[in-house]
Amino acid sequence: MTGDGAPVTLSEKLKLIADHWHPRIVARVDGYHVKLVKVKGEFVWHAHADQDEMFLVLEGNIVIRMRDGEVSLSAGDLFVVPKGVEHCPFAEDEASLLILARDDTDHTGGVASALRAEDQEWI
Amino acid sequence: MTGDGAPVTLSEKLKLIADHWHPRIVARVDGYHVKLVKVKGEFVWHAHADQDEMFLVLEGNIVIRMRDGEVSLSAGDLFVVPKGVEHCPFAEDEASLLILARDDTDHTGGVASALRAEDQEWI
Repeated sequence: MTGDGAPVTLSEKLKLIADHWHPRIVARVDGYHVKLVKVKGEFVWHAHADQDEMFLVLEGNIVIRMRDGEVSLSAGDLFVVPKGVEHCPFAEDEASLLILARDDTDHTGGVASALRAEDQEWI
Repeated sequence: MTGDGAPVTLSEKLKLIADHWHPRIVARVDGYHVKLVKVKGEFVWHAHADQDEMFLVLEGNIVIRMRDGEVSLSAGDLFVVPKGVEHCPFAEDEASLLILARDDTDHTGGVASALRAEDQEWI
């Protein structure tokens, strides 16, 4: 928990994450959460009807598939999936992401999936 | 301008910035701007009364001075200055930052300063 205003060293926080597709919160900015997640393989197709979602790749490479195309992102690349746009993140090898999304975001956009995390966990 | 949904390669955008303390917008997330800024020396003491401000150091080192102490941040460190908290960023050598703040933020919190940028410029 770093809601107390402590600096967050992203590389140290990433060491605490051993699983995939399970975002952990590291900071709050107004009504938004900054989250870290490790990913590998394919997530689930979903959209967030009323909110944008920002991805910043910290390590590795990912592809964000959308219905009308895809974007390839490497470490240091940032991309915003606009509200309402169906997307499906994919990573051939493990990658680490920083995500900014509203604090009431459901990371699968309500889509049932074995990859869905029900909790909102701080690290 | 990358509000069209294009990926943003942060290192390429930073090459376009030659001055200090003048944030440029690289993305929008709902009502927030993601901005890049190069800094060197001391900014101006200010606060944002009703909004948090997130700093992520991309290159170099900075100190965020606050009235009750300071935090030292290096590349890969993230820190949120809570709403209402007076702060003054300082960098002995040039550093590059990613900032997330509301799109109506005045970066000096309304404080008059030679360092104040009046515009909201995308790169």
